[in-house]
Amino acid sequence: MDFELNEEQRMFADTAQQFALERLSPMAAKWDENQIFPKAILREAGDLGFLSLYTPEEQGGLGLSRLDASIVFEQLAMGCTSTTAFMTIHNMVTWMIATFATDTVKNQFCSKLMTGEYLGSYCLTEPNAGSDAASLTTSAAKRGDHYVLNGGKAFISGAGDTDVLVVMARTGQSGAKGVSAFVVPADLDGISYGRKELKMGWNSQPTRAVTFDNVSIPEACLLGTEGQGFTFAMKGLDGGRINIATCSIGTAQQALNQATQYMQERKQFGQPLAQFQALQFKLADMATELIAARQLVRYAASKLDREDPDASTYCAMAKRFATDVGFQVCDQALQLYGGYGYIKEYPMERYFRDVRVHQILEGTNEIMRVIIARRLLAQESALL
Amino acid sequence: MDFELNEEQRMFADTAQQFALERLSPMAAKWDENQIFPKAILREAGDLGFLSLYTPEEQGGLGLSRLDASIVFEQLAMGCTSTTAFMTIHNMVTWMIATFATDTVKNQFCSKLMTGEYLGSYCLTEPNAGSDAASLTTSAAKRGDHYVLNGGKAFISGAGDTDVLVVMARTGQSGAKGVSAFVVPADLDGISYGRKELKMGWNSQPTRAVTFDNVSIPEACLLGTEGQGFTFAMKGLDGGRINIATCSIGTAQQALNQATQYMQERKQFGQPLAQFQALQFKLADMATELIAARQLVRYAASKLDREDPDASTYCAMAKRFATDVGFQVCDQALQLYGGYGYIKEYPMERYFRDVRVHQILEGTNEIMRVIIARRLLAQESALL
Amino acid sequence: MDFELNEEQRMFADTAQQFALERLSPMAAKWDENQIFPKAILREAGDLGFLSLYTPEEQGGLGLSRLDASIVFEQLAMGCTSTTAFMTIHNMVTWMIATFATDTVKNQFCSKLMTGEYLGSYCLTEPNAGSDAASLTTSAAKRGDHYVLNGGKAFISGAGDTDVLVVMARTGQSGAKGVSAFVVPADLDGISYGRKELKMGWNSQPTRAVTFDNVSIPEACLLGTEGQGFTFAMKGLDGGRINIATCSIGTAQQALNQATQYMQERKQFGQPLAQFQALQFKLADMATELIAARQLVRYAASKLDREDPDASTYCAMAKRFATDVGFQVCDQALQLYGGYGYIKEYPMERYFRDVRVHQILEGTNEIMRVIIARRLLAQESALL
Amino acid sequence: MDFELNEEQRMFADTAQQFALERLSPMAAKWDENQIFPKAILREAGDLGFLSLYTPEEQGGLGLSRLDASIVFEQLAMGCTSTTAFMTIHNMVTWMIATFATDTVKNQFCSKLMTGEYLGSYCLTEPNAGSDAASLTTSAAKRGDHYVLNGGKAFISGAGDTDVLVVMARTGQSGAKGVSAFVVPADLDGISYGRKELKMGWNSQPTRAVTFDNVSIPEACLLGTEGQGFTFAMKGLDGGRINIATCSIGTAQQALNQATQYMQERKQFGQPLAQFQALQFKLADMATELIAARQLVRYAASKLDREDPDASTYCAMAKRFATDVGFQVCDQALQLYGGYGYIKEYPMERYFRDVRVHQILEGTNEIMRVIIARRLLAQESALL
Repeated sequence: MDFELNEEQRMFADTAQQFALERLSPMAAKWDENQIFPKAILREAGDLGFLSLYTPEEQGGLGLSRLDASIVFEQLAMGCTSTTAFMTIHNMVTWMIATFATDTVKNQFCSKLMTGEYLGSYCLTEPNAGSDAASLTTSAAKRGDHYVLNGGKAFISGAGDTDVLVVMARTGQSGAKGVSAFVVPADLDGISYGRKELKMGWNSQPTRAVTFDNVSIPEACLLGTEGQGFTFAMKGLDGGRINIATCSIGTAQQALNQATQYMQERKQFGQPLAQFQALQFKLADMATELIAARQLVRYAASKLDREDPDASTYCAMAKRFATDVGFQVCDQALQLYGGYGYIKEYPMERYFRDVRVHQILEGTNEIMRVIIARRLLAQESALL
Repeated sequence: MDFELNEEQRMFADTAQQFALERLSPMAAKWDENQIFPKAILREAGDLGFLSLYTPEEQGGLGLSRLDASIVFEQLAMGCTSTTAFMTIHNMVTWMIATFATDTVKNQFCSKLMTGEYLGSYCLTEPNAGSDAASLTTSAAKRGDHYVLNGGKAFISGAGDTDVLVVMARTGQSGAKGVSAFVVPADLDGISYGRKELKMGWNSQPTRAVTFDNVSIPEACLLGTEGQGFTFAMKGLDGGRINIATCSIGTAQQALNQATQYMQERKQFGQPLAQFQALQFKLADMATELIAARQLVRYAASKLDREDPDASTYCAMAKRFATDVGFQVCDQALQLYGGYGYIKEYPMERYFRDVRVHQILEGTNEIMRVIIARRLLAQESALL
Repeated sequence: MDFELNEEQRMFADTAQQFALERLSPMAAKWDENQIFPKAILREAGDLGFLSLYTPEEQGGLGLSRLDASIVFEQLAMGCTSTTAFMTIHNMVTWMIATFATDTVKNQFCSKLMTGEYLGSYCLTEPNAGSDAASLTTSAAKRGDHYVLNGGKAFISGAGDTDVLVVMARTGQSGAKGVSAFVVPADLDGISYGRKELKMGWNSQPTRAVTFDNVSIPEACLLGTEGQGFTFAMKGLDGGRINIATCSIGTAQQALNQATQYMQERKQFGQPLAQFQALQFKLADMATELIAARQLVRYAASKLDREDPDASTYCAMAKRFATDVGFQVCDQALQLYGGYGYIKEYPMERYFRDVRVHQILEGTNEIMRVIIARRLLAQESALL
Repeated sequence: MDFELNEEQRMFADTAQQFALERLSPMAAKWDENQIFPKAILREAGDLGFLSLYTPEEQGGLGLSRLDASIVFEQLAMGCTSTTAFMTIHNMVTWMIATFATDTVKNQFCSKLMTGEYLGSYCLTEPNAGSDAASLTTSAAKRGDHYVLNGGKAFISGAGDTDVLVVMARTGQSGAKGVSAFVVPADLDGISYGRKELKMGWNSQPTRAVTFDNVSIPEACLLGTEGQGFTFAMKGLDGGRINIATCSIGTAQQALNQATQYMQERKQFGQPLAQFQALQFKLADMATELIAARQLVRYAASKLDREDPDASTYCAMAKRFATDVGFQVCDQALQLYGGYGYIKEYPMERYFRDVRVHQILEGTNEIMRVIIARRLLAQESALL
């Protein structure tokens, strides 16, 4: 066993840390306050390879493992949670196209997605199919050499400001096996976008509903074959859960670092907060649980990379645990700041708002428990 | 023992409930989004007596007990947490003036404060004296028949938009005994206000810093005698803690009610959320802890009304427990809403943001524990 | 509202406190270690009225309310958790006979049960009908003017050492409505007792299985009419839940009192434990939650006494919350004692073992959540 | 990074698992009930190398890393928590002698300790020096070529039934630097043992106080040089914390496995417990937190093996987290068993009693927080 970063991982982490420090962190508060989607910065991220982290090398990507990517995303999230979370989604879109699309489609989109010239959105969730994704009703009907899309998607990150959509739609029977995945240019006739959702956080990425009204797309836009969509979605979700868990870890680490420093500076009753034992204990627990969560995320990522048959269960565990711990750490860091934790002059309240959605996204933490329990109760062998 | 509301309490509660439902609830989201301080609505609240709840009857107030007032504030908080919280502060200011001011000052301010024609701010906290209020440094120097105020206050609710300030300032030695309380017209020469703080919540009440630069006030503005200020502040705090705890209870009850209804309407996997046992259990725990918290708040209010020597300890317990439970209930209600809990179209995220500050204000919950432990370890007799 | 004990309640509490201090506390460790069922002490308790607390006055009982009885049991539990818990069961048996039995049966048993000359056991639980009591299979078949009992009960407190059994058995259809209740002398032919269960705690009361093999009882032994048994059982359970919750509160208060004192005496790193802020905070939280739990128990008892239609729900809440809090307080008190908390020379580990079963008995805390959630989701009106 | 067991580790684990299953598990309940110290079984464990896991190979030990040893101990703890915990202590004693003793002493004791012919006790704790070990007062006065020991130790595992003691005693100044370590034959004149402590759990290992009354030992019995004792103790403690954390993990895994199976067998309300979603969620959380804890323990063990400068902090984190999680998992598993969880016919209540002491031993979990916080607040670099 070996729990330490190797040389290459350290190098990636350093690059990401520097980018977070210099390009994300200074602007994050402003992006949040003014709901700015920082496209130029995303282009810069593309230049450094952060938009093609696990796109295969043969497609021009970095071909990193999920574990490697997690190490990078964690550093980026220390700079801006919301922007990094968008990058993880964009990476998934890019990976999905690079892996499952026809060559034509790959050639059309991949390189532009990897540079950030194009941005991608992932369209799975529907208003009445949140946690229960397999019940989605957006339809893709084959008409000659085209598919015609009809239906609606909700809570789509980037929608309205992105260039490419990966859309899950029903081509066949009800349930998971009737779902297919399509690559759809975002500006096709018949695609309309809802108003920008006002959200508690994640404000540097726009969220909108998407409506498909007789949108015609060439059959080459199908990813893989008909009926494979849900399988792709699930593969995407495993990685997505690692990523969202990672964003919680990075943000919480940033909150912890700042709270630690604040405790040494802020005085009450004649001494620094750092002198108060009850606050010390709280800090100790924050750090302990955060480290446990990080290790669990990396463990799950490694299971995913190894194609362990239980990888999905580990990803669900990591997502549940790390997003809960991440939120608690940010909540307690905010509390350590007292009144200053509640105002926008300090970043604590932003961390707190941003990570809260991670307990909901990519399958709520309740769904994670369903997944974990199903495995525990279905098989003889214990998870270790 | 009797745990039920009496006839009069029910009547007050009904009036407050109606006002919350009709005048607060429909506007609360807008006030939050646009940071509107609803002065006209506060005037209406004044008309119904909600701004003079525990002002003595001889001054024209309702002369309610803290327990009665808690019953009223709980209902109001179900309509708008932030606006109700401001009303509780205003009530404290009014009560303090009505109880401790010279007749001249009473006559000048009380009736206008009770109608809401004037609004009041309470100026205790300083940038370097948050939890450690006794170390405040704003000074009031006696110059003939005037006092001259110098110094600064931070996080003052309503400041910049209110008409009367009750200011704690140092007239004597260091520590609690050197503090005096003054009534100060808010527009005197030398008083300046900071920019409106951008806060995570509590957006229907403006928060600003206040600076006193050689502000001259007549000696009649002194409340009580020199050195009594901290005692007044502490009396105010006991009630303030009941009130802030109450605002958490009311908000959490509102969140719970809505989440209960939502669970019956929202379907996933072919059945209402209400059918999922794990969510039922969560709901059961939310309700149980909320009821326990409400009872503890009422118990503490009753101790305060009885002038129990341990009243401050019970108030600290109620504040700690009810604001923690209130936040957890709102957090879990948000989670039950899934993605809809995170967007501003639904009120869950506002409840969540608004109640979070209650764990910090009126003495952080850490300070509450200091107060409770001090009592437990100082005396033989157990608290029951 | 009034949250204070009245004169009479104080008097009862004082008597109980003295009995706990003098007669229970000094012996509790020995009873635990040697698994002694203290019959002589129970007789003494009978002399003081502690075995007929809510038996109607017309039957010679004290006719106290459930709230009054809770105040008494709390004090007794401070002396010995396990023995007090048995007394609560015995009281329920006595109350059930005094309230629902024919005069003949009342006359035969009641006075002896109230003095403790007879002791009673309550036979509801079966090996395969724990939480799901309505599915019990012990049968009572009418044969002329007798009933013939067959079947088995499990986990029966006192069984094998008591004189009277109240037995729930099926006289009719499946489900709750086919259950009837019987008073059964404990030494009838055909009744046999299993070996004494070895338990983690509750060692001052023996627990055994009971087997009925063609046990013939006169029809006069039926309580009420056929089919009322489950209704009686449920009434008994509401009170039983208040009682078991009360036993947790009393034990936890005792643990808290001793831990508070221990913290002032035990030194580490040159100062009393009481000087360590993190331990102070823990103590503060223990006390706060314990007081909240006690108030909730009293609130529920008062609902039961008022025959509030939601009384069962409040009893479930009180049982769930108070037994959880009670265990946590004992667990933390044990921790404060360090190594001394783990050895039998100090009472902490006994408190910890004894209260643990309260989270399981009288309906597990999971069943409590089922009951609470059912009410929350079934009706419009909120519980307050 | 690599999180999987290698071939050799799997082999060790398999051997340990088999020993646990065949030799420990069948007897553990009986050892507990009758307080039997299973010396013969310990000898068998010695034959398999389990008593010399990290004794250096040049001394005839297996020379395993702390991480490897943790993998072994986890399996053993699945068979008997208390016996395995004793083995970990014995291993530490053996390691300490094999590493720091003079050759004479090594030759005298090591091989017999590795086979289990001799058993060892570790004498650090004193009645008034529990968490504050550096304040110990047992003295070792140099008299010619001998040391004379005087003083007393408390809570010594195995004492009275073991053959060799490693004793920490003061040879010099107050504080940590005046402490030295000695190897002491257990039957020397002047050594007396207190009565066997009655404990809540850990009953397969006797615990006694040890008194030294002018016990004369040759100077060759000194480990290392004078003043090094506390350093050795601290090294021992880091490993000891990994070990005790490991014993919690193994026990909790065993409890989880059995609870999972029980849920599938036990029916209530007409269906297996496994069908109830709320219980599924509980199971999922137990598994998730247990896996996180195991990973943290292995991470800390690896830091210790790498001699990472922060190893002690990681060991403290692992000990705090894993013993808390271990207890919670056992507590919840007991709850899932309902009434059967509380009786000695099933092992749940034993697991629960046994792991509880792990939150206290080897430095209480409060001391762990002190250690962690000190590091967090002392240095710039974050722990990751």
